[in-house]
Amino acid sequence: MKRVYMDHAATTPVDKKVLEEMLPFFTEKYGNPSSLHSFGREAHDVLEKARENVAKLINADKEEIFFTSGGTESDNIAIKGTIYRMKEGITGYKGPHIITSAIEHPAVMETCKHLEKQGFKVKYLSVDKYGIVNADELKNSISKGTFLISVMHANNEIGTIQNIDEIGKIAKEHNVVFHSDTVQSIGKILVDVKKTKIDLLSMSSHKIYGPKGVGALYIKKGVKLQPIVHGGGHEKNLRSGTENISGIAGFGKACELAKTRLNKDAEHLTNLRDKLIKSVLNIIEETYLNGHPTRRLPNNAHFRFTAIEGESLILSLDEKGVAASTGSACSSKKLLPSHVLMAIGLNEVEAHGSLRLTLGRENTDEDVRYVIDVLPGIVENLRKMSPLWGKKLEIEKWKREMK
Amino acid sequence: MKRVYMDHAATTPVDKKVLEEMLPFFTEKYGNPSSLHSFGREAHDVLEKARENVAKLINADKEEIFFTSGGTESDNIAIKGTIYRMKEGITGYKGPHIITSAIEHPAVMETCKHLEKQGFKVKYLSVDKYGIVNADELKNSISKGTFLISVMHANNEIGTIQNIDEIGKIAKEHNVVFHSDTVQSIGKILVDVKKTKIDLLSMSSHKIYGPKGVGALYIKKGVKLQPIVHGGGHEKNLRSGTENISGIAGFGKACELAKTRLNKDAEHLTNLRDKLIKSVLNIIEETYLNGHPTRRLPNNAHFRFTAIEGESLILSLDEKGVAASTGSACSSKKLLPSHVLMAIGLNEVEAHGSLRLTLGRENTDEDVRYVIDVLPGIVENLRKMSPLWGKKLEIEKWKREMK
Repeated sequence: MKRVYMDHAATTPVDKKVLEEMLPFFTEKYGNPSSLHSFGREAHDVLEKARENVAKLINADKEEIFFTSGGTESDNIAIKGTIYRMKEGITGYKGPHIITSAIEHPAVMETCKHLEKQGFKVKYLSVDKYGIVNADELKNSISKGTFLISVMHANNEIGTIQNIDEIGKIAKEHNVVFHSDTVQSIGKILVDVKKTKIDLLSMSSHKIYGPKGVGALYIKKGVKLQPIVHGGGHEKNLRSGTENISGIAGFGKACELAKTRLNKDAEHLTNLRDKLIKSVLNIIEETYLNGHPTRRLPNNAHFRFTAIEGESLILSLDEKGVAASTGSACSSKKLLPSHVLMAIGLNEVEAHGSLRLTLGRENTDEDVRYVIDVLPGIVENLRKMSPLWGKKLEIEKWKREMK
Repeated sequence: MKRVYMDHAATTPVDKKVLEEMLPFFTEKYGNPSSLHSFGREAHDVLEKARENVAKLINADKEEIFFTSGGTESDNIAIKGTIYRMKEGITGYKGPHIITSAIEHPAVMETCKHLEKQGFKVKYLSVDKYGIVNADELKNSISKGTFLISVMHANNEIGTIQNIDEIGKIAKEHNVVFHSDTVQSIGKILVDVKKTKIDLLSMSSHKIYGPKGVGALYIKKGVKLQPIVHGGGHEKNLRSGTENISGIAGFGKACELAKTRLNKDAEHLTNLRDKLIKSVLNIIEETYLNGHPTRRLPNNAHFRFTAIEGESLILSLDEKGVAASTGSACSSKKLLPSHVLMAIGLNEVEAHGSLRLTLGRENTDEDVRYVIDVLPGIVENLRKMSPLWGKKLEIEKWKREMK
C-alpha cells in the first residue's frame, strides 16, 4: 500500500546526510567530550562544530547555543530558569510574573501552570480567530513584576505565525526577558536573533529532519538562567549530563541543511500546501481552514469539517496509508478538545472535527493528489454515519419544504 | 598507532547489534509514538519493547521503567521529584531531609547542594578508606524529617560497591524512600529490585554499550514523584518531551545484551582487571590501589602513584594511544581534587596522582599487556621531572647516609 506521511509537525524522517554525519559517533568516535584523551577530543570537536551550525541557522553566536534533550526541555529551562533566578525580587507586585499566550505548546503551557501552583502569576494572552496575539493586550498586561514574556513563533497546530519582531520590541521597551518557542518555525521560515529582539529561543532537532532526543536553547549573551538539572556542569553549567554526541552531530547537520535549503524548501512546501488547501476547500463541502490564510507555516494545512469526528478521520486516512493528525501529537491521545482551537473561538464539536496535514521535503505533487483523491470519500462515509450530519440534512430538507 | 580504550566508566562504544536495532528508527520507522497513525504505532511498539528489556535487566516490571535523557536526569528526577513532593510535610524537623554519601556522582551531589541552598537539610555520610558507607552512621542519621536516602551502588571513580541490600533494609525499616544511582553497576554486576528493597534507581545507556542521550529511572510501584520537566505528559506525566525512539530502541537492546552476557562479561573483565592490578602494583614502585580490594567493579582499576600528577599521566598515556582517566569524566576538566579521593582520606597531592583504567568487553589480554608495557616508562619519566620525587630520593639518600 502507498504510504504518505503528512505529519511533519509531529516529527520528520532523519535526512540521510544527517544519519551519515551521526554514524561514526556510535561505534568509532565514541568518546565522552569531557575526557582529556584523543577519544574525548574527537567528541568535543564535533560538539563545537555542531554548535556552530545550530548558531548559524538563527544567526546567533556559537557561545549562545546550549544543547538540551529537545524542545520541551528547552522551554522548561527557559521559563523556570528565568523565573527561579528572578524569584527573590518577584513578590509584592500585583501584575503577572509571566505573560504567555493561550495557544502555546504544552511544554510552555504546563510549565506555566506548574509555576502558578507554586504561587507565580501568569497571564495568558487571548488570540484572534486566526490565532494572532494582540500587541495592545500584551502592552497593557506588562507590570513592574513581569519578568518573562513567552510567545511561540509559529503554532504547532494551526501554523499561525506571530509577529515576534513586534513582541520582542515591546519586551525590550519594558525590559522584560522574551522567550519564543521556535520549534515549528526554524528551518521553515527565517529566524534571525540579530534582527528580532529575543533573549531565549527553543529549538528541536527532530522537527527539521534531525534525530529525536536533542534540541537547543539559544541564550542571548548576558541573560542568566538557573539550571533545572544539576550535575557535572556540562553546557557551561546550564545542563548537566553527558552530551548526546551522535544526536548533536545530527542536529548540527540538520541545521546546516535547513539553512542551505530554506528558500527552496519553503517554495516547494508552499506550493504543495496551497494546492492541498485550495482543492480540499473546493471539493469537500462544509470545510473550513483553521489558522491564518497567509501568515501561516509553508507546510501547514489545518481543516475542520462539519459533523466529522477528527479521530475517525485520522484512522480512516491511516487505512489508506495517509499519516495525519488532529492537532498536536503531544496531546493526540487525550480526549480533551485542543486548547488552541478553543482559543481561536471554535466550539467543542468544531474543535473535534479537525485535521492537520503538515507537509515535508519528501512530499510530492503525487502525494497531494493522492490525499485529494481519498479524502472526499472518507469524509462522505463518515458523514453518512454522523448523527450531526443527518440532523443537518433534515433541517435543510425541512427548510426547503417550508419555502 | 595502536589505540587502547580503557575509559569505559566514562562511556562505551555502541555495540554493533545495538546500532542495528536503532537504524530503522531514523529514516524508515520515524513516527512519533504519540501519533495515532501506523508510523506512530511502530514507534510506540518499540518503546514498549525496549521498556520490557530495560525492566528485565534489573528484574523490574515494565510499568516501573521511565525513560529519561540519561543518568544525570534520572538522578535529578529521583531526588528533586521526591523532595518537592514531600515539601509540605518537610518543615519543623531538625534531622536531615536527605541522607546521601560523600562519594556520590556530581548528578546526586550537585542536586543535593542545590536543595541545601533552597533550605533543605542534607547529611553526607562519611566512608571508610575503601569508600564504604557505615551502616550505623546511616541508622543514626535518620530522623522523623528524613524523606530520602540516596546512596550509589558502585562508585564511578574507585569502583567500590556498596551494600545496597543492607541500606535498602534500613531505609525500609524507617519508612524512608531509597534511591540508588546504579549507572556504573548495571550490566556489570547483578542488580535485582525484587531482592534489594529499593524505590528509585537511575540507569544510563551509554555506560553499557548503548547510545548517549538516553537513560531510565526505575520507580517502584506506588512511589510518587513530582516531574521536573513539564509538557505533553509523556512517560505517564513524569517526563515530557517526544521520546528519543532510536536511542530508546538502542538502550533496550543494550540491556538485553547486558543481561545475556552478564556472567561472561564479568568473568572476562575480572580476569583482565586482576592481571592489570597485580602487574602494575608489582612492577611500579610506590604504587597503590584506590578502592576496595575485592568489593569493586569487575572492570575498575584505580591506582595512585607517589609524586605523579594524574593529568600528565593521562596525556602521556594518550600519546601512546591509551585512553584513561584520572577519575570521573564529568569532573576531569576541573582542577579540584576528586571529592571521592578526599573522602577516602587521601590528601590533595595523593588525590592528584591518580589513574583510573576501566576495562570493557572489547579489551583483550593484549591490551592489558600493552598498558603494562608502556606505563612503567611513563611513570619513570614523569617522576624524573617531578620535584616531589626528587625530594623523596634526596631524603632516602640522606637516611642511608645517616645510618
